[in-house]
Amino acid sequence: MASSDDPSATIAKAAKQAFEASQLVESSERVAALYEIKKELVLSKDKILLANKEDMEAAQVEVDAGRMSASLIKRLDLNKGDKWESMLQGVIDVAELPDPTGKVSYASELDDQLELYRVSCPIGVLLVIFEARPEVVVNIAALAVKSGNAAILKGGKESTRTAAAISKAIQAALSRTKIPDCYVQTIQTRAEVSSLLALDQYIDLVIPRGSGELVRSIQNSTRIPVMGHADGLCSVYLDEAADPKKAVRVVVDSKIDYPAACNAAETLLVHDSLLETIWPEVAKALLAENVQLLCDNDSLSALRSSALPNSAPNFQTHIAPAPPHAYTTEHLSLTLSVLTVPSLAAAMLHINAHSSHHTDCIVTESERTASKFVRGVDSAGTFVNASTRFADGFRYGFGTEVGISTGRIHARGPVGLEGLVTYRYVLRSQGASGHIVGEFGSGEGKKKYKHEPIQATAVPF
Amino acid sequence: MASSDDPSATIAKAAKQAFEASQLVESSERVAALYEIKKELVLSKDKILLANKEDMEAAQVEVDAGRMSASLIKRLDLNKGDKWESMLQGVIDVAELPDPTGKVSYASELDDQLELYRVSCPIGVLLVIFEARPEVVVNIAALAVKSGNAAILKGGKESTRTAAAISKAIQAALSRTKIPDCYVQTIQTRAEVSSLLALDQYIDLVIPRGSGELVRSIQNSTRIPVMGHADGLCSVYLDEAADPKKAVRVVVDSKIDYPAACNAAETLLVHDSLLETIWPEVAKALLAENVQLLCDNDSLSALRSSALPNSAPNFQTHIAPAPPHAYTTEHLSLTLSVLTVPSLAAAMLHINAHSSHHTDCIVTESERTASKFVRGVDSAGTFVNASTRFADGFRYGFGTEVGISTGRIHARGPVGLEGLVTYRYVLRSQGASGHIVGEFGSGEGKKKYKHEPIQATAVPF
Repeated sequence: MASSDDPSATIAKAAKQAFEASQLVESSERVAALYEIKKELVLSKDKILLANKEDMEAAQVEVDAGRMSASLIKRLDLNKGDKWESMLQGVIDVAELPDPTGKVSYASELDDQLELYRVSCPIGVLLVIFEARPEVVVNIAALAVKSGNAAILKGGKESTRTAAAISKAIQAALSRTKIPDCYVQTIQTRAEVSSLLALDQYIDLVIPRGSGELVRSIQNSTRIPVMGHADGLCSVYLDEAADPKKAVRVVVDSKIDYPAACNAAETLLVHDSLLETIWPEVAKALLAENVQLLCDNDSLSALRSSALPNSAPNFQTHIAPAPPHAYTTEHLSLTLSVLTVPSLAAAMLHINAHSSHHTDCIVTESERTASKFVRGVDSAGTFVNASTRFADGFRYGFGTEVGISTGRIHARGPVGLEGLVTYRYVLRSQGASGHIVGEFGSGEGKKKYKHEPIQATAVPF
Repeated sequence: MASSDDPSATIAKAAKQAFEASQLVESSERVAALYEIKKELVLSKDKILLANKEDMEAAQVEVDAGRMSASLIKRLDLNKGDKWESMLQGVIDVAELPDPTGKVSYASELDDQLELYRVSCPIGVLLVIFEARPEVVVNIAALAVKSGNAAILKGGKESTRTAAAISKAIQAALSRTKIPDCYVQTIQTRAEVSSLLALDQYIDLVIPRGSGELVRSIQNSTRIPVMGHADGLCSVYLDEAADPKKAVRVVVDSKIDYPAACNAAETLLVHDSLLETIWPEVAKALLAENVQLLCDNDSLSALRSSALPNSAPNFQTHIAPAPPHAYTTEHLSLTLSVLTVPSLAAAMLHINAHSSHHTDCIVTESERTASKFVRGVDSAGTFVNASTRFADGFRYGFGTEVGISTGRIHARGPVGLEGLVTYRYVLRSQGASGHIVGEFGSGEGKKKYKHEPIQATAVPF
């Protein structure tokens, strides 16, 4: 249990106070703060890139010693290509998005001169835990400031120096604005995360981005609500009424466009009527892209007896029987599990039982079948003839995203600024004597509730 | 860890299967099921009331032995007044409410012939834990069926026989409908609750109604999201610009209309400029209603030196210095803690630090002050010149309520049917070759996203 002289408690308490103090600050000030952050990042570029160089050198030592994967270095590098510039542009993009707070989603006149408004407002203090890439500190800080939430950020340990330098710049920028400077804080260690997870009086939402294991371990360790961004075990189902060309294009794109992404397809379900027609075509296209196919018996023997020449590229090397765990594995690579199903119902049953409820797609020309699929598959995204890779905040039109929530509560699928707000109810009496419930009821002389909808987009006072 | 041959796992798995099987059932069938439930309850009235009589007799033994409070018997009695009839009417009321599912809240054309819809859908399997009153089984079952969620219900142990008889009737009714009969199941023991809390693969949301202690203990024991319905530590702040008549009416109603409710006021904050004017009037009205006042020094000495006659009713008996824990206590009785504050800012600071973020009210004639209060107080309800007792699903116009959520995520304040749904994204390509992300990008010949809003209230296929 964290006590109040625990340094984590100091951080959490400061965040809560910063949040509360910011509630009366106009949203235009939050936008101004974002421009100030961008300005300070530009001014601090040399310092930040120096810290980044140190992180990369330390990482190189780990890579050389075989303790870290070489691909991590690339992800750490803030000076690579246009990463620095697009990080700065991201801050401005977020600043220019519509304010997610102050929007009325329900308004009703309960009685003459008694009006109720349900209005969007920030959640409070967010604890965001994410992977190595240091630019995420800036992305999340921008989203937090824009949505009116205070944030405590924990990035990957490999980017500690970079994150600290960025955080210093952000706090320097905020100290020149009406937003308190501990609005965005960074922490470095897992021990700090553990302590913070006990502080539900200060922290309102934990947002972990990473493996299912990370998300579950956090859910196990806290009373604070968790909005998990975990695995994507997405599937594509080729229905008996699939169009061959769409089948090939959608499956290939879902698998190869970015295999390491959570919205890449991991499982292909094939209706058994397609085993000798569309399936070999799809397989051929996947093999040509170097995809490894882990097939069930039926799809495997269909390929072996198909017109597909044994001499087709990768035919001898890239087809194998599916091991038992194939259909519960997020490959995150050029590997695809293939399963034959006898019906739409069987496909939906398989998806509901095995997918991670992230995004699942059907390829079909039947509107009736499509309609059943999008209602019967219990996933955050249910797609028809479109690649699973479309499941993304930018593609959905949210401008930017916190991540893709694999939870079902509050925000599901790609989470934009709207996912970082909650609401409250504002009730105002303008009656000459105020309003009391004792005057309402079923007895004689008692008032009845009107419940008359009000057209309002904002609270009018 | 519950294993799959655990009886709780059987219940949870059956609920998940019932939920999934129900996803393709039309919402009109859910309405028909509610009418069938009402019919079966009428047919089973004798059996249910017999079970209820047995529960009450068993409870009477406990009361006689001093192990249970006598007020519980009244809450158990299903045959008291119009309780039975209004329970049945409640089922019909819920049936006739608008369907909360299938509503589109965001729709956008991402590209020609590529449409995205965000559509409301059920959450999945709910585990609802509530207090003794047996009619809640029927209320919650009706809400679950209407919103398309399967539910596992655990009521107070005192109402076990009644709940079992009601549950039997509900399952008998459902077996004649297109809704699976294990859509609504009841469990009896805390041990079953404990086992179910481990089954996050089957259960999607836990809704505990009860003490803060109950809610926290459940949050501590599960990875499943929890929508807690816990304490209400509500306050009323009398601003320096308060109208005297409104002050008296709003404070008295907030305190005495139903002191045991979570939306009753527990703390009164008085601006120090009112100590000799409005405060004695308010105190007099509260004393006349037998309210015990626990006062800080300033409000206490103001009363003692006020024109309020020492002979006023209860003046000698019902005024006492506030003990230190007064401002963190949910009295749930005719007791009110009183604190003097020097400013609006101090009042808001006190409320944000001490209230349970349920509902807090300001009495003021200043629109500017009201505006600051409703934005700066971080509670689910922020009220102006209106009793805290208005915080209620029926009064808000939701027809009925699951309870009043004291969490901040997903649903906040009174939770109606809308709080029992989440959403998913449906994406449909009607393009001649389907849609793939590989065609979009910043390079030459690449497509750009359109993000053109679509007017749609439902998914059009």
